[in-house]
Amino acid sequence: MKILVLNSGSSSIKFKLYHVSATSDEFRALCEGQADRIGIEASTLTMKRADSEEKDKQFIDLPNHKVAIDNILKQLTDPEKGVLDSLKDLSGVGHRVVHGGEDFTASALINDDVINAIDRNAVLAPLHNPPNLMGIKAMAALLPDMPQVAVFDTAVHQSMPKKAYMYALPREQYTNYKIRKYGFHGTSHGYVAQKAAEVLGKPLKELKIVTCHLGNGGSLAAFMGGKSVDTTMGFTPLDGIIMGTRSGTLDPYVPLYIMESQGLKPVQVSTMMNKQGGLLSISGKSDMRDNVQGAEAGDPDCKLAIEMFCYSIQKFIGSYVAAMNGVDVIVFTAGVGENNPMLRARILENFGFLGLKVDTARNNANETVITTDDSKVTGLKIHTNEELVIALDTYHLIK
Amino acid sequence: MKILVLNSGSSSIKFKLYHVSATSDEFRALCEGQADRIGIEASTLTMKRADSEEKDKQFIDLPNHKVAIDNILKQLTDPEKGVLDSLKDLSGVGHRVVHGGEDFTASALINDDVINAIDRNAVLAPLHNPPNLMGIKAMAALLPDMPQVAVFDTAVHQSMPKKAYMYALPREQYTNYKIRKYGFHGTSHGYVAQKAAEVLGKPLKELKIVTCHLGNGGSLAAFMGGKSVDTTMGFTPLDGIIMGTRSGTLDPYVPLYIMESQGLKPVQVSTMMNKQGGLLSISGKSDMRDNVQGAEAGDPDCKLAIEMFCYSIQKFIGSYVAAMNGVDVIVFTAGVGENNPMLRARILENFGFLGLKVDTARNNANETVITTDDSKVTGLKIHTNEELVIALDTYHLIK
Repeated sequence: MKILVLNSGSSSIKFKLYHVSATSDEFRALCEGQADRIGIEASTLTMKRADSEEKDKQFIDLPNHKVAIDNILKQLTDPEKGVLDSLKDLSGVGHRVVHGGEDFTASALINDDVINAIDRNAVLAPLHNPPNLMGIKAMAALLPDMPQVAVFDTAVHQSMPKKAYMYALPREQYTNYKIRKYGFHGTSHGYVAQKAAEVLGKPLKELKIVTCHLGNGGSLAAFMGGKSVDTTMGFTPLDGIIMGTRSGTLDPYVPLYIMESQGLKPVQVSTMMNKQGGLLSISGKSDMRDNVQGAEAGDPDCKLAIEMFCYSIQKFIGSYVAAMNGVDVIVFTAGVGENNPMLRARILENFGFLGLKVDTARNNANETVITTDDSKVTGLKIHTNEELVIALDTYHLIK
Repeated sequence: MKILVLNSGSSSIKFKLYHVSATSDEFRALCEGQADRIGIEASTLTMKRADSEEKDKQFIDLPNHKVAIDNILKQLTDPEKGVLDSLKDLSGVGHRVVHGGEDFTASALINDDVINAIDRNAVLAPLHNPPNLMGIKAMAALLPDMPQVAVFDTAVHQSMPKKAYMYALPREQYTNYKIRKYGFHGTSHGYVAQKAAEVLGKPLKELKIVTCHLGNGGSLAAFMGGKSVDTTMGFTPLDGIIMGTRSGTLDPYVPLYIMESQGLKPVQVSTMMNKQGGLLSISGKSDMRDNVQGAEAGDPDCKLAIEMFCYSIQKFIGSYVAAMNGVDVIVFTAGVGENNPMLRARILENFGFLGLKVDTARNNANETVITTDDSKVTGLKIHTNEELVIALDTYHLIK
């Protein structure tokens, strides 16, 4: 069985094709690629087969999502460069959808109701849900009988209790305007929490886990009883830890004060907090690798950026340990979380009070278990794979 | 020696007079009272002597702060109702001042420089610093030779490290607009932290303490090495835990989204977050006592209000335990913190992982120590006394 995963943005579509073994349920990526600059001049389509180091890149006119997906399908079945004999070999398509609002607590087989619900929640993710829907509709137009599945960034966190997701604001802000904590990165948090349980050989339900998804964007989640019970991103992905260009949590009066003191409009303050904040605002470098390099070279702003980043994560880990009355596992994942032993050690050095002991050799070698055998709390580094989760969910829903 | 403490608001002035024993440095309150509706019709002046149960209330024209303070002084020296033979017995006046910005790390003997600095920081506390200054100037005009002292709500938190007080926003927001975390309730946090050290018989410097000031407003602070290293209120008193009418922390995009989705102005959203949020927004009751009553009667909104309140405090306590890599003492103070055993128990029940054990009998009796003798972390209930701190600081600075 073959499953295609699509992540449709406003001017790009990322894709990845998986083969699922009929006997073992094992997933193997066959190729991946992306269509870029859709609807803009000089659009391109790139693809790389898993069995080759070469990347195929074509300049090709992609005026809209439908043409782009049509070309992706043509590329997949190209007799020379492709990986499929025919589109008949394709069994399903899984889509990343950012915002499921309160309508989706899990992935869903796409039908008209699902499409309407994604559309309804576009008000909460105006930059993401509409292009996600464009991808879904384009695929439906091209292959009307193909089963499609929507996998939501928010679904995993719909298990949060009211005390975690409600804001202390007049009730109509929630009932009329849907303002509450949703959380994001749910596919990643859910995946690494499950993997952590497998590594420990215990049922997920019996573990208290804090998952740290640290990429250019980043969020933490708390899992108890097998479910997400809290997470750092809120109504939008702006809230929580300090990120590459996002400020993370702030006194909520600050955006209003910035407007008033500097004569700015909401959209300008939003841009400041989302695109000009975070690590970028502290050191001028949004990429953590550049901050680490800068700090090693003695740059005090890079040092401060790292210090503030680690501190904001430490405080949220602590808050979730309290929320769960303890913790068994702390998981690091995504680019920064998987590849930076120094940061993991810096973050974890404040959890000696829990009996957590980092194993320096394991951590420096980027092993899965990064704490000592006698550590009271297990630290893990787990590779996240959001495309694989989308493929898995698609497989299980169409099977 | 006699010391007068003043807390000057925009239309009211609270006062309290202390006697300090020359031999033992002991403080004893002689009387307290308040001038109300200054500059409004039907203004009043009330006073209660410590040696009497009776409250004296007069309706008296108080067109401005100077007339109000003049009448307070007349009342203090009234041959019949007063407590002073003459104003010559008064040695100093201590003023509560809300915002010292980055100019004051401790209380200060008032001179022109101090007055200018309070004025300069009025941009950060436009509702509080100007009336605080009116009180100072009125007193200086009435008694030009009287030593006066300013005691700042922010001073104790000026010891916070950069990683705690900086926001991840473009640097000019800090350098040009002074946007950073300041924290408030500093006199209370500092006082109960010191008291906690005395109760434990250990130097403050050697303890890791979380202080929970829970009144109608509320904030938490973390003390390590004898200093405040973090606190929940931020640039303004809006941030942090859920309060009577304040929302506490929110995704910072939320105020902008409310403006955009509902066509509101910054001042309207600020009013919503500061005056219509918090417990009030959850249950319709801003007073915790009403919420406790409601919850006991089965009101689900009151139950949710208590649940959200406790949860927000638990998470911040946890974040400070992580920030300090452990905790020795958790202190509860102020109206809600001192008088509600049920809430203290609810909040502390999530800290079993630290080896903290609430002693139900002690807690229910509102004793100072509310944990068991073998508890790994000590829970304390300590009565805060901000006026006394102001009197103490005034005494030490004028002595």
